[in-house]
Amino acid sequence: MNTLPKQIHIKEEGPREGFQFEKGPIPTARKIELIDALSRTGVKQMQIVSFVNPKAVPGMADAEEVVRGITPVPGVAYTGLWFNDQGLERAISTGRLEIKGSINLSASAKFLQRNLNRAPQQQIAVTRGMIDTYRQKNIEVERATIMAAFGCNFEGDVSADRVVDLVGQLVDLATEQGIVLGRMSLADTMAWATPLSIKRTVGAVQDKFPDLDLELHLHDTRGMGIANAYAGLEMGVQRFDSSVAGLGGCPFACHAGAAGNVCTEDLVFMCDEVGIETGIDLEALLKCGRLAEDVVGHPLPGSVMKGGSLRRLREKLSKAASA
Amino acid sequence: MNTLPKQIHIKEEGPREGFQFEKGPIPTARKIELIDALSRTGVKQMQIVSFVNPKAVPGMADAEEVVRGITPVPGVAYTGLWFNDQGLERAISTGRLEIKGSINLSASAKFLQRNLNRAPQQQIAVTRGMIDTYRQKNIEVERATIMAAFGCNFEGDVSADRVVDLVGQLVDLATEQGIVLGRMSLADTMAWATPLSIKRTVGAVQDKFPDLDLELHLHDTRGMGIANAYAGLEMGVQRFDSSVAGLGGCPFACHAGAAGNVCTEDLVFMCDEVGIETGIDLEALLKCGRLAEDVVGHPLPGSVMKGGSLRRLREKLSKAASA
Repeated sequence: MNTLPKQIHIKEEGPREGFQFEKGPIPTARKIELIDALSRTGVKQMQIVSFVNPKAVPGMADAEEVVRGITPVPGVAYTGLWFNDQGLERAISTGRLEIKGSINLSASAKFLQRNLNRAPQQQIAVTRGMIDTYRQKNIEVERATIMAAFGCNFEGDVSADRVVDLVGQLVDLATEQGIVLGRMSLADTMAWATPLSIKRTVGAVQDKFPDLDLELHLHDTRGMGIANAYAGLEMGVQRFDSSVAGLGGCPFACHAGAAGNVCTEDLVFMCDEVGIETGIDLEALLKCGRLAEDVVGHPLPGSVMKGGSLRRLREKLSKAASA
Repeated sequence: MNTLPKQIHIKEEGPREGFQFEKGPIPTARKIELIDALSRTGVKQMQIVSFVNPKAVPGMADAEEVVRGITPVPGVAYTGLWFNDQGLERAISTGRLEIKGSINLSASAKFLQRNLNRAPQQQIAVTRGMIDTYRQKNIEVERATIMAAFGCNFEGDVSADRVVDLVGQLVDLATEQGIVLGRMSLADTMAWATPLSIKRTVGAVQDKFPDLDLELHLHDTRGMGIANAYAGLEMGVQRFDSSVAGLGGCPFACHAGAAGNVCTEDLVFMCDEVGIETGIDLEALLKCGRLAEDVVGHPLPGSVMKGGSLRRLREKLSKAASA
């Protein structure tokens, strides 16, 4: 029954997802404090800022300052997010971020229009241009993403066939310029996925593209995040994005309805309990979850930071037994 | 891949779990308001009160008054919880509850001691006596429960073998008095289960006792509730306890760390989305979730009541498309 992977790679996206989303303002120093604390948990990759228009996303206006302020820990790759050449240039200028290329298409034309103000053909042109830019700058195209891969609030359900088709388009766009795509992220941007659709879509992509390394980006708006992650694990997925404390959403009065990525501590807890290595120290991470609540100034959705780890309980019981 | 059951039976435990847990006081009329609203969602069984010592559980001091006050809806079975003859007599006296026998053992001796102040041998004697009482009163013994079936905060992990052994003990106790046990509930009382341990333990019990109808009672303290429920569904489990809005716990400042049963709306949402019938109207249930928050006066953990159902979104999209 247990065909779970032996280990997985978690990309912490809490700082980027969270500071972008929070109505704030959150002092730059506190953002840096949380990023530095996360750096010491064993996490190996962390997306800490996005380089977007500060008028559209005021919470990211201090992106450069945040990057300048952190104390990098060896072995941790700090990354940023961008959607155009200007954003990429800003990321490169920091001189402190891991710069790898990422391209994406959206399974929903309407979401693409609302989110990036582009039509599908424009997005393909932009993607072609991005690949060209990466090639010219000798930047590795590390991965491609299908946004809204499981459904869209503005367009509805997305079939596994549609996702397979889009994966093919991304592979072809890379191949056109002599690039072999190694990694494909399926993003449940608007929280439409269920464990069943995760298994269906991941399975369909694996069947058609067995060499692609799949990655899941799961939002938790409808409480399915951890169940969806487990479905991914059962399908052999070994890469997950997640968000400390569930940062990036607040299912309470502050921002009704929204929710961030699946919570990192809850994912690490589940992995610990079923014997999957994450390389992350859960107890240190739980402290970061509580710090995140303090930094944003309101409760966040993570469960294990409130319920406590079982490892800690087992240690207490074992001490009591041997005393 | 999809071997999920076609339909499941959900027992709503929110009122009993919640009103027992909340520091309150909650006016009796408001308890009745929530129970009556839940009665109109399509739920077929609801545990609304427990008959316990009012000094130990002040929130249940008005149990009889609550039962007297509800407006029973035909087709809904209202039940109560008791742990001894005195509690059973109180339940019978109401004249309005479905009285079915339930017996239980604990996988953890230490939990049993703390929760019911009984040693394992005492619990077996009590159980034998309960069966005898039910038999004499012509009350059907509907189900047996293993408490702490997946782990215990005071004793640690519980193996699948241990659970199989306890299931055997309960079956034997019933058989001694000529009763065939049809239903067995495995309760993750202290939220130690993972999807993996659910599959292992449920699988082990099914292998040894293929005729038993299994039921899961899943607490959500560490955020695994929905993932554990899905693991149960994949194993063919068709009976679940759950709690509207996640009542019975409050993972926020009010009662740090505790959490109720898996949230009914989130479970019904997941079932709706993967094509499993529950007989429950999700939109009506979401209103009950919000009512539950109003009744207890603080946020509750349920996700879908904040994120919204997808059915509602699909309807909007389909209307817009045909307009």
